[in-house]
Amino acid sequence: MSAGAPGTQDRANTSGAQRQQAADVARIFNSAVAAWSIAAAWEIGALDELREKGRLDAPEFAERHDLDVPSTEAVFTALATVDIVRYERSGGNDNDAGGDGMCEVLPGPAFEETYRTKALFHWLCRGSAPLFTAMPDVMRNANRTGRFYRRDAEAISRACADIDAQFFQPAFRGAMDALDFDFSLVVDLGCGGGGRLTQILRRHPQARGLGIDIAPAALDLARGDAADAGVGDRVSFVHGDVRDLAPRPEFEDAELLTCFMMGHDFWPRADCVASLRRLRDVFPRARRFLLGDTARTQGPGRGAMPVFSLGYEVGHALMGACIPSLDEWRDVFPEAGWELRRTHLLDTPAESFVFELG
Amino acid sequence: MSAGAPGTQDRANTSGAQRQQAADVARIFNSAVAAWSIAAAWEIGALDELREKGRLDAPEFAERHDLDVPSTEAVFTALATVDIVRYERSGGNDNDAGGDGMCEVLPGPAFEETYRTKALFHWLCRGSAPLFTAMPDVMRNANRTGRFYRRDAEAISRACADIDAQFFQPAFRGAMDALDFDFSLVVDLGCGGGGRLTQILRRHPQARGLGIDIAPAALDLARGDAADAGVGDRVSFVHGDVRDLAPRPEFEDAELLTCFMMGHDFWPRADCVASLRRLRDVFPRARRFLLGDTARTQGPGRGAMPVFSLGYEVGHALMGACIPSLDEWRDVFPEAGWELRRTHLLDTPAESFVFELG
Ligand SMILES: C[S@@+](CC[C@H](N)C(=O)[O-])C[C@H]1O[C@@H](n2cnc3c(N)ncnc32)[C@H](O)[C@@H]1O
Ligand SMILES: C[S@@+](CC[C@H](N)C(=O)[O-])C[C@H]1O[C@@H](n2cnc3c(N)ncnc32)[C@H](O)[C@@H]1O
Repeated sequence: MSAGAPGTQDRANTSGAQRQQAADVARIFNSAVAAWSIAAAWEIGALDELREKGRLDAPEFAERHDLDVPSTEAVFTALATVDIVRYERSGGNDNDAGGDGMCEVLPGPAFEETYRTKALFHWLCRGSAPLFTAMPDVMRNANRTGRFYRRDAEAISRACADIDAQFFQPAFRGAMDALDFDFSLVVDLGCGGGGRLTQILRRHPQARGLGIDIAPAALDLARGDAADAGVGDRVSFVHGDVRDLAPRPEFEDAELLTCFMMGHDFWPRADCVASLRRLRDVFPRARRFLLGDTARTQGPGRGAMPVFSLGYEVGHALMGACIPSLDEWRDVFPEAGWELRRTHLLDTPAESFVFELG
Repeated sequence: MSAGAPGTQDRANTSGAQRQQAADVARIFNSAVAAWSIAAAWEIGALDELREKGRLDAPEFAERHDLDVPSTEAVFTALATVDIVRYERSGGNDNDAGGDGMCEVLPGPAFEETYRTKALFHWLCRGSAPLFTAMPDVMRNANRTGRFYRRDAEAISRACADIDAQFFQPAFRGAMDALDFDFSLVVDLGCGGGGRLTQILRRHPQARGLGIDIAPAALDLARGDAADAGVGDRVSFVHGDVRDLAPRPEFEDAELLTCFMMGHDFWPRADCVASLRRLRDVFPRARRFLLGDTARTQGPGRGAMPVFSLGYEVGHALMGACIPSLDEWRDVFPEAGWELRRTHLLDTPAESFVFELG
């Protein structure tokens, strides 16, 4: 409904319920534009600057970052529409961007939570957007052969690094602090850009690290970053499918295994049992396995779906992947030859966990 | 917030305001997933079937359309999360999809308005998604040269045909009925897939039509469709930029001009004045010019932005296009040599119009 717009001759016939429905659907539309804008605002540095400085001037920000001014203003307009930012007239506090006065952008009521979850939006709207856009093509059985979908692997790595920092790190550090043994070799399964290994090696200057990933591009990135971080001489990266590893001499000494945000790739269940068993054989000296991932929520969406879960589950359904629930995860370990010693549960993303396996 | 999930030791420290903020941001995220799902659900025929039959069974629907079953269920889950559909246990009316019973999908509280505006979502999430996904790249001045953005032209044509049918047709028909002269030749500027010409020629069996578009692919489509519709012998399509037409003998007889959903491409103002003046010279016998498009809303987004406007305005800012307001449009005609005889204003998309110019 075009509140305040002309040409509303039929407005008189519109019931309150219809107006509410129109507002609700407009809000869905505007939220989609805003979700893209969150990912963009983070990537151009606007969310960080707003958080640090408490305000910014959109044209000045645009010029300083060599960005198009109308596009930059449009991003803030989108964020304002869903209360992530608000406008204030410079020198005053008129929360209204109309008129000709200079307007500054300030954090709005939803800013802090948006900042906390920004990487989840980036995962959705930047990393996974090609998959969601192609939804009606990807759903057709006739198209589901070969590489039937596309995502932006670089954007997903970037998002995952922040998802890790925002959400998994506290539980991961807790699990690392709880280790009751020293280790000389840590192996990270599905290591991506290698950030986790770098971080571990910095805290454990005697240890060596080995990263395994199925994506050659991730390994190239990881090698470069490890060298830049000054741990290049203590870490190596090998290409491999961790669901199906063959024993290797360099695997034999690993006492610690880690695996984050890819555990669901071990499933379905029978494959997961087999893969986890094989890890026991391939890494015979492994004493602890820290496994962190996000599980499936229970039952289809009923209104109050928490942030991320819906996108994560719809996205994996499109990709033909089955995400296990927490109970399904817990049920697999006895058969797979691992003992679940402790479980850390995360508040966000919902149903996320770090398992300490022994 | 993972309502009902385990691992919520810090929940006790969460204030009501934080919980509300988390729910609001989750809703933005879920709405983005739902917006993609609306476009998909329309394209696979689910919205039409739900509207006609009042219910459907997701796995049965998937099989009948040769779609992947989990992906199809995921689309309905996303729609349910924002109340566009709801679940009902078969034979009962338990609005809860948990448990093992068979569940049917029914229209939810937001269904009718979603159905009405589905093509606006398709425009955003299917046609324009590559542009919005690339937002942080497109915003950088360094990248804004050459063809610096990409959209899905075929998806946009499909969306525009429904936007026209849902929103512009009543005003367009009113303007056609108000014509007080017969015409032998109608020219459609920016004719796209040619649907408008086909429709006019069917109602006016003595008339001939000419479509002009800048996109060769649209013209190929238009030629094929016109032939299929049985008006191929009375219509021709020529390639051209309607902002800058040169006189041609075949233009001379046109008494009626139409131009829909592209008028903003005539702008900025000075260019628009020049282009509209030139149309007078190029089509010397034109007696009426029906110009329909969507204008800019006034002032940056303040909460209650109606459906479409935000996406339309952010998208055009990214593309470097300036959308005029209704007042800016009205102001241009005297100088451009056209008389504004009547204005039809549409309720949706907000600020949309059909001008009858003479
Ligand atoms: C979401 S990323 C997470 C990266 C990293 N573990 C982190 O915590 O940021 C998942 C990674 O697992 C890798 N991966 C997925 N399946 C794999 C497999 N079967 N074998 C090895 N690596 C795999 C992907 O290539 C990607 O780099
Ligand atoms: C949104 S579509 C609308 C198509 C059609 N008029 C309708 O009502 O459905 C806009 C069309 O205008 C065409 N167009 C845009 N700028 C143009 C120009 N300068 N000259 C000719 N055609 C143009 C595009 O190629 C596209 O087919």
